[in-house]
Amino acid sequence: MDEASRFVIASSEVETMAKNAKVSAVQLLPSLVPSAQALARPPISQYHVGAVGLGSSGRVFLGGNVEFPGVPLHQSIHAEQFLVTNAALHSEPHLPHLAVSSAPCGHCRQFLQELRSATRIEICITSSPPPPCHHDPKPMFKPISHFLPDRFGPDDLLHKDVPLILEPHHNGLAFWDHHSNVDVESSNGWVDLEGELGGAALEAANGSHAPYSGCPSGVAMMDSEGRVYKGSYMESAAYNPSLGPVQAALVAYIVGAGGDYGGIKRVVLVEKKDAVVRQEGMARLLLHSISPHCDFHVLTCVSSNNSRFDH
Amino acid sequence: MDEASRFVIASSEVETMAKNAKVSAVQLLPSLVPSAQALARPPISQYHVGAVGLGSSGRVFLGGNVEFPGVPLHQSIHAEQFLVTNAALHSEPHLPHLAVSSAPCGHCRQFLQELRSATRIEICITSSPPPPCHHDPKPMFKPISHFLPDRFGPDDLLHKDVPLILEPHHNGLAFWDHHSNVDVESSNGWVDLEGELGGAALEAANGSHAPYSGCPSGVAMMDSEGRVYKGSYMESAAYNPSLGPVQAALVAYIVGAGGDYGGIKRVVLVEKKDAVVRQEGMARLLLHSISPHCDFHVLTCVSSNNSRFDH
Ligand SMILES: [Zn+2]
Ligand SMILES: [Zn+2]
Repeated sequence: MDEASRFVIASSEVETMAKNAKVSAVQLLPSLVPSAQALARPPISQYHVGAVGLGSSGRVFLGGNVEFPGVPLHQSIHAEQFLVTNAALHSEPHLPHLAVSSAPCGHCRQFLQELRSATRIEICITSSPPPPCHHDPKPMFKPISHFLPDRFGPDDLLHKDVPLILEPHHNGLAFWDHHSNVDVESSNGWVDLEGELGGAALEAANGSHAPYSGCPSGVAMMDSEGRVYKGSYMESAAYNPSLGPVQAALVAYIVGAGGDYGGIKRVVLVEKKDAVVRQEGMARLLLHSISPHCDFHVLTCVSSNNSRFDH
Repeated sequence: MDEASRFVIASSEVETMAKNAKVSAVQLLPSLVPSAQALARPPISQYHVGAVGLGSSGRVFLGGNVEFPGVPLHQSIHAEQFLVTNAALHSEPHLPHLAVSSAPCGHCRQFLQELRSATRIEICITSSPPPPCHHDPKPMFKPISHFLPDRFGPDDLLHKDVPLILEPHHNGLAFWDHHSNVDVESSNGWVDLEGELGGAALEAANGSHAPYSGCPSGVAMMDSEGRVYKGSYMESAAYNPSLGPVQAALVAYIVGAGGDYGGIKRVVLVEKKDAVVRQEGMARLLLHSISPHCDFHVLTCVSSNNSRFDH
């Protein structure tokens, strides 16, 4: 079985599973939560959280929590964030139904607000049995508006036309200065930085959701077999629940390669020159902690209406 | 007016203000929110959030949001976290009533779970006017259980006797190896590291709330006039909403000194040897960003039943 098939279930397979279980695809979700928990990587808490989501395409996405020893706990990826990142990786436009192994924490309830029509997304907590008087054995789904009433979210800060998470982003970024990036390359013996890996990181930065700070960023990782994994920084209206670009790329790595982090050999971060929110320092710390021997480079970019041809 | 008096209002003054306004101390809180907003330091968002809390001592504590350019947004201190840290700094045992300028984000709703009887703490959002049919002009307070139903919190993970935030903590930490700490000192021309500043940081680590990772830590800062500000790391059951020890010490600095961060000259972080959650790297990054010329040292400690006399 290839790794990706553990994290994404094709719509035809979802249909077959639901048919065999004599339930709808939505009602199937809770039964998949244990498979998601098995994918978690929580070396600190040993607490396996699983989250699954049914996309509007009919596919099911799985996610588990991921923790990183050696750095502050802010760096952890929650199962719900893993799930959303996994759905974004596979260009899923909507996740109207989720099931999770335990009550979503406030951080995740806030992060989920970055999805379009978030308040209507429905969640089932599998650790909460239905009340004793509840004769209908169907799993109980409640809307996010139940879990985070009087919310603070994108509506408070953004025009309704600004894209949210899972919607296409085109940040219009380009490398800011060809020659100084070339210098970085040659002094480190790298070639083709603006080629495959640099280009992939720039693509990830162009897909980054950073409407609050205006500081999109992206990461691309290469493993020992030359495969590339991309991750786009995803910002929360409440700032702290934002998911860093290294975390997003690690989701792609875990979904695509599945091995230990030592398999990550080269990493490129692309962020804006003079960004007020800078990922570089923390990215370096996290990478040093999980894959001490990987090469790490930072390339700067600018909005393309402000590119090298303009100065 | 000294700085602290802008952040803490004495109980006698609270009584006088309430009497003059012909309201109870609880009903006075919303009128103090603009003063809290004025204390915010949000250079990234320019969005001033204010939070005030009435302690069981009758004192009122104020807090504003604090943002740090140059580092990821996870480093931000929310107004509610500032308020709780300010109350902890003044040994306030309970904060049963809060008022905030805008709806608390999910991250803060989760962080507030670390207070004893959190679900019963009542919050008033001053930006939400009472409904038009609401003839009683009194401000509307709602319990935290309204804002974070089906919560995930300390109850899910800790024995009820484990102290929570605002309760006394005695982590029983001691410096682990006198001689190697002395080496750090002399190579940097420092003296007395295990004296005032090191001792203060150890005290802060001993007051740290870190029951989930078992990795308490503390920071002490010294300004150019030799005054010392302490901060204890405060962990959240949900990990990511935890408040770092540098952030906690910065609250003490802002409350006590009030000037710009360049006034911070020396910083000591105390954390456990071989801690699985390590603050050092991120602390260094944040300090470098806000006060590039301050000296920063890390001292390691162990549980005192495991101290230097035992090995
Ligand atoms: Zn969570
Ligand atoms: Zn908040």
